[in-house]
Formats: sequence, structure tokens, C-alpha cells
Amino acid sequence: MKNYKLLVQYEGTKYNGWQRQKNTRNTIEERFENVLSQMARRKVEVFASGRTDAGVHARGQVVSFSCETEKSPEEIRAYLNRYLPRDVRVLSLEEAPERFHARLCARRKTYEYALCAGEKADVFSRRTMYEIEEMPDVEAMQRAAQKFLGTHDFQGFSSVKRTKKSTERTIYGAEVERQGNRIVLRITGSGFLYHMVRIMAGTLLAIGLGEKTDMCIDEIFRTKDRSLAGKTLPAEGLCLMEVQYD
Amino acid sequence: MKNYKLLVQYEGTKYNGWQRQKNTRNTIEERFENVLSQMARRKVEVFASGRTDAGVHARGQVVSFSCETEKSPEEIRAYLNRYLPRDVRVLSLEEAPERFHARLCARRKTYEYALCAGEKADVFSRRTMYEIEEMPDVEAMQRAAQKFLGTHDFQGFSSVKRTKKSTERTIYGAEVERQGNRIVLRITGSGFLYHMVRIMAGTLLAIGLGEKTDMCIDEIFRTKDRSLAGKTLPAEGLCLMEVQYD
Repeated sequence: MKNYKLLVQYEGTKYNGWQRQKNTRNTIEERFENVLSQMARRKVEVFASGRTDAGVHARGQVVSFSCETEKSPEEIRAYLNRYLPRDVRVLSLEEAPERFHARLCARRKTYEYALCAGEKADVFSRRTMYEIEEMPDVEAMQRAAQKFLGTHDFQGFSSVKRTKKSTERTIYGAEVERQGNRIVLRITGSGFLYHMVRIMAGTLLAIGLGEKTDMCIDEIFRTKDRSLAGKTLPAEGLCLMEVQYD
Repeated sequence: MKNYKLLVQYEGTKYNGWQRQKNTRNTIEERFENVLSQMARRKVEVFASGRTDAGVHARGQVVSFSCETEKSPEEIRAYLNRYLPRDVRVLSLEEAPERFHARLCARRKTYEYALCAGEKADVFSRRTMYEIEEMPDVEAMQRAAQKFLGTHDFQGFSSVKRTKKSTERTIYGAEVERQGNRIVLRITGSGFLYHMVRIMAGTLLAIGLGEKTDMCIDEIFRTKDRSLAGKTLPAEGLCLMEVQYD
């Protein structure tokens, strides 16, 4: 048995997210497992750094799996790219140490959330951004984003039910950049709770539109009250950019 | 009656081209005419600088129409963007002189044909480029492209049946640019025959892959023999970039 590490891109638009589910078909995980199981002629299980939700994209998802095959890494990659659908692509594939596991070994992840203001949005990128009508105050969003840095309990910025599992996460970077009528929020963290990036983005947007002040971020950390945060922005604007390992 | 000039973007992937046809539904022209006729409460006819074929995109198509309405240009644009599908967008709309006609007054058009070499193509741009396996010799393509410049009979570079209409066209610019694994062919001309850019692109690609030499271009101008030219490359790589008027 050899273990492999893959760097993967996908446009999530038409998928029900990464993770194979009991009652939901059409997941990206399922596509990988089908192609690899066909190649290895036995069931192959794949692990991603984390599940991405329905409609969420990835430019740098990391996946691992073990299997027995006589194919070289280059041949496995070519096989996958041949049989995977056109909106899923393996950028690279290499042998990894036996103990490497894409999810368990992940240390940091970077997500981007892309907004586009005004109706002059580019029709060619519309599947990978969320269109808003009015240009928000980007500087206010940049200042507010700094409040996310460090280690906090992000319960109030998630759709997670109260749980015994820790909802503490560490944010290493939170930048808001404007490029023309496009605003990109880039967040790097130790990990993310369910809907966490989309709610952080929704809160920053509400601040940029003057509907909230950045004081609300401290308040949400203190009270863990989801209702004080902004909306969960749509999946289409979210993209997993990079996963870092030790 | 006022006359209007529009700058329009569309992703042509799911359309049967620009022009409304007897037996084909789902054209972009039809979408425009439906929305405008609904707005003006009478039939409005629209004219584009030229028809684009099924699956061809536009970043700078120019459209004109006349109608009677109390709405301002800004309001008409907002109305169109509200009711047109998400893959069609009006970038700007302004009142134009009465004699302005998007097709009859067009002087130059610029098209781009985008190729992407290797299987590491970007899944996010796959609808707007043609994927090829092997990187061609871009310098050979650049040299060959220069042969298109000037006024020639392009009959052999078209899918036009022999006709009494002139098949002479003037090419003002023909550049081939490489950006990473992406190759973009940019052609500006007085006008283009049916499939002309896609056959020019197919011929340059055959030259870049060493299947033909650039001598074939002179030979095709001389003999008007379509069978000496390269393949008609797929619609997905083609995009109308700009239309110039006096």
C-alpha cells in the first residue's frame, strides 16, 4: 500500500459539496472514490483536508488516499484527470509518508470570499463571486477584519449547535482587498467551524454597509450569539485556496 | 423614437449563438428582444455588430435598437440587467445618433481565441478556452500570424460556400501571446467570414504543432482551398472583444 497526496481544484457549482452523504448524491468525494476504485479494482477511500459545502469551490484542496497499484504517480494523476469530470482537476499527485492524512495533518487553511459590487459584474466570473448592489466601505471592513486575529471562541460565527467539542479557533490572517469593483476577503486559520467564513464575511459586509459597527465582533465573541452576526453569505463566493502542513 | 448603443458581455456556452433563427430557440438576440419588447410594450428589434455562433462568447459586443420609452438610458440598462439571464450583461447603454446601426456602422472587430496547453488547465476558465494536450511552438505561430496581415481573399479560411459576395477582408492586427500555459490569439479585422477566426486559429495551431508550415497560408490565399487549412477550432475558445466605429 502506498499513500498519496494530491492538490486538487474544483468548481463546486453543481456539486453537493465534498463529502459523500447517505441521502445526497453528486459529491466530489464520490467522484474521486469511483474513479480510484475503478483504477485499483477495489474500494479506495479518500480524505480531504476538510469538507467544503455545496457550491463552494477549491483552488488548492488537499486530498490523500492509500492504494495498491503498479501505476506511477504521474500515471495515477493522468488517469484521474481523464475520468474525473471537467470541473474537477488534479493539479499534482505525489507519494506521501505513510502517516500523512490530508485532514488530520492539516495545520492551516486559507479561504477567500469574493464579493462583486454593482451590476457591472463580470459574467465570466459570476459563478465564483457573490454580487452585491452597493460598494461597501472597504477600509471599515479592513479595520474590522483585524478583530478576528488571534484565538477566540467562534461559536457565534458558526451554524454549529452547542456542542462539547471546542469551538475555539486561531485566525492567523484576515485581509480585505479591493480590486476594482471586486472585494476579496482572505482568511487563514487553524480550522473553521461550519459556515464560519461565510458568516465572518457576512458580518464584515454588514459593517462595510454601515448596518453594524465593528464593536459587534467583540460582542459576539463574548456572548457567542449567532443572531448578532451578519448573514451567512452564499456558497458561490467561497473558495478554499490553500492548506498548509508541517 | 430614440436610438441606443449598448456594450454587452455574454458567456455563450448555453446559447445557440446571437441570431434568432427560425428553427432554433435560445438565442441571445431573442433574450434581448423579449425583455425590450416587454419594456416598450411593442416589438423592438435589436442589431448586433455581428452574429456570434453557438457557444461563442463576447466581452465587448455592440448592440443597437430604437424604441419609444420614457425611461432614461440608465433605467433601460438597469431594466435589461434585471430581466436578462445572469450570463448576459449590459455594461453600458447610451443614446446614439439616429443613423447609428451596430452592424452597418462597424469598422473593425477584434476577436480573441484562447488555447490552454496541458492537463493542468484552470477549471475556472474551462468554458472560455480550448484545451490542447501539447504546448505548440508559439514563436512559429507568431511568425505565421503575420502572414494574415493586409487585404486578402479569405474564402479558403472560411466555411462559406462559393458566393458572389466578396470574401475579401482586411486584417489589421494578428498577435499570438503566451501567458503561462495559456496561448491567446488576438485578431483585428474589417470583418470576418463564417468560422474564419476559428479556422485561422486552427491553422496557426497546426503550424505550432509542426503539422503544417506557414507556407500553407500563402497557398490557401492563392488556391482558396479550405482543405489546406487547419481544423475549425471549437466555439468555446472564441470571444468577441471589441468593435470599433468611426
